[in-house]
Amino acid sequence: MKGKGTRFERDLINQFWKRGFAAVRIAGSGVMPHPSPDIIAANGKRFLAIEVKMRSKLPLYLSEDELKQLQEFAEIFGAQAFVAFKIPRQDWKFFTLDLLIRTKKGYKIDGENYPFGLSIEEITSGTIQARL
Amino acid sequence: MKGKGTRFERDLINQFWKRGFAAVRIAGSGVMPHPSPDIIAANGKRFLAIEVKMRSKLPLYLSEDELKQLQEFAEIFGAQAFVAFKIPRQDWKFFTLDLLIRTKKGYKIDGENYPFGLSIEEITSGTIQARL
Repeated sequence: MKGKGTRFERDLINQFWKRGFAAVRIAGSGVMPHPSPDIIAANGKRFLAIEVKMRSKLPLYLSEDELKQLQEFAEIFGAQAFVAFKIPRQDWKFFTLDLLIRTKKGYKIDGENYPFGLSIEEITSGTIQARL
Repeated sequence: MKGKGTRFERDLINQFWKRGFAAVRIAGSGVMPHPSPDIIAANGKRFLAIEVKMRSKLPLYLSEDELKQLQEFAEIFGAQAFVAFKIPRQDWKFFTLDLLIRTKKGYKIDGENYPFGLSIEEITSGTIQARL
């Protein structure tokens, strides 16, 4: 599963490069004493801090702490925070934190908010501002 | 040597966090098909792409290709490129690419330009603009 995850993550990074973004995978994300996302991508105008998630199906549950750390990193760095979510046979979808549904212990993406996820075209072009 | 290098690199990352920068180590730098620096640090205003080098003494030689990749990454990402250089019993010094001395095959830092390296205080505060 780790190998598969890495392959999908590399593919995501390649998609950013193809769209004129410099994208990198962060080392030791979740292990370091400081918060850090899985991927950072930027094109000189737009700076993105991305937490990467893959599941075989909906829903995806995210812990309060994980989201808090992503938000904290993004604020200090000067980036917009996204959860990138991949399920089989679907393109990556990107969720700003306010697109997530609150649960008792954290957040989730299920059938209700999944359709509102943004495409990579949207988050790498100017169209995101209009939708948010 | 790898362990020692990692320790110094972590210490450098900590120094950025202490100064209000979110700093991360990039995974697989130099292995990926796309260019990538060793560290990225930013505070919402200043974005830094950093290649990390440690030597037991001067000089430090840098290949043309390595610098070209750092510059390319920095331009696409929207960051300022630096070589962070550590020698024993000295603080980290930061070199913009125009502070490096040209050699036949690349660039170097030796006794001539080493004193002009910037401190972490300088590159994390506003004072760098005045000096460059």
